[in-house]
Amino acid sequence: MKKVLVTGANGVIGSAVREHLADRYELSALDILPGDFPTHVADIADLAAIQPAFEGMDAVVHLAASISVETPWPDILKNNIIGTYNVYEAAKQAGVAAVVFASSNHAVGMFEVTNSPAIYATDHPLVIDQHADIRPDSYYGVSKAYGEAMGRYYVENHGLRVCCLRIGSVRPDDDPTSEAAGASSGWLPLTREQTLERLQATWLSQRDCAQLISRCLDAEHIPFGIYYGISDNQRQFWSLANAREELGYAPEDSAARR
Amino acid sequence: MKKVLVTGANGVIGSAVREHLADRYELSALDILPGDFPTHVADIADLAAIQPAFEGMDAVVHLAASISVETPWPDILKNNIIGTYNVYEAAKQAGVAAVVFASSNHAVGMFEVTNSPAIYATDHPLVIDQHADIRPDSYYGVSKAYGEAMGRYYVENHGLRVCCLRIGSVRPDDDPTSEAAGASSGWLPLTREQTLERLQATWLSQRDCAQLISRCLDAEHIPFGIYYGISDNQRQFWSLANAREELGYAPEDSAARR
Repeated sequence: MKKVLVTGANGVIGSAVREHLADRYELSALDILPGDFPTHVADIADLAAIQPAFEGMDAVVHLAASISVETPWPDILKNNIIGTYNVYEAAKQAGVAAVVFASSNHAVGMFEVTNSPAIYATDHPLVIDQHADIRPDSYYGVSKAYGEAMGRYYVENHGLRVCCLRIGSVRPDDDPTSEAAGASSGWLPLTREQTLERLQATWLSQRDCAQLISRCLDAEHIPFGIYYGISDNQRQFWSLANAREELGYAPEDSAARR
Repeated sequence: MKKVLVTGANGVIGSAVREHLADRYELSALDILPGDFPTHVADIADLAAIQPAFEGMDAVVHLAASISVETPWPDILKNNIIGTYNVYEAAKQAGVAAVVFASSNHAVGMFEVTNSPAIYATDHPLVIDQHADIRPDSYYGVSKAYGEAMGRYYVENHGLRVCCLRIGSVRPDDDPTSEAAGASSGWLPLTREQTLERLQATWLSQRDCAQLISRCLDAEHIPFGIYYGISDNQRQFWSLANAREELGYAPEDSAARR
């Protein structure tokens, strides 16, 4: 089994990885806080502190970050800009072959913002693929575009393999229809109904998220790729075409079929 | 006349701006070192220190950066990542309408690297435009891709106007055929002859560089754009099409005609 380090292992996606992939990979954990499993506790912004966790790994799933779209710049700089450089550099120095980078749809979020809420309708024609121009909606989105660029640099200049996942909406309760899902995050002024309609398009179930990460870990023929991460939802304004074709991603869930 | 702040005013391009545009704009200067003209001396990485220079400006030409392709990460982080955020943020806070950002072809440099030296031949078909995938060849290139992404964020979320210039080869001696031009920089292993052949394609004369910056300053109809900056060279593997069409850029020089 491949040895895989998960950064930010205590988070929602980290927990999904542990729940769904622990039988396929030898997982280890890095987080800024200890969890109820063995964890290398270190700040992602401290290169020397995180480096021991990379020794002997075959791959890294890099989830550690400030994850709110509304994160102010100082935290983005520390956790997402510096932290992501640290992960690629630690991987390179330790000879780790592959990094799966948790990017975000917010790297191209202005396509959604400028077409919201019409874009959520099942008959709306807009579909955004991995070649769309970079249009961040936030410092968070800028940091994810940066992380993709840095990843490609490490691929083409240092021989890493990097998959960037522009992840949609992964929910702690894994339910795209719950009351909690209706609470707008504030970065986009939507009514409760519009927020639920949005989630019908942007939802990524935890097991589909884990599958997508697993496909990236196994895709040794892919030096670099950018993929969107949503379930097999009826409305898909982020294209899954290259994830299906290049990775063999086959989502098992759909927001509408829950 | 528009009031225009030039950051990095002491550099090669800053000097070209002062030489060619001093009669068209009311220029002021910011640099980390004093020059032989009035200069707001401040470190671009210090937001509070640079902010006074932005007061009352109509536009900023942001040239201050670590400019070597081989700059190590700590300097890139400080000068190019933090420094460029500081410039956009200072512009926003001071109500400055426009920023011309000195980006670089190195944001997409791997298209050249992987096709070098064949790409320099006048009959080579590859032409890279502003929609090409981000493929940095260096931390420097990553920082320029980041600066473009950050610029677009400020345009679409804070109302700035930003032109990003992926500048080719601006020479201190303004001569694409001189002995000095033949000294390879080391980031790409070229012979002296190949380096000179490269410059025939990548050269941007100082007056064409100044014209391009001026076109950006005047292009009030353009909220955001990414443009390559080369002279009217015989071989052009970076497209000037959108600079000609959107900005009216009409280069007066050509490496071959010098």
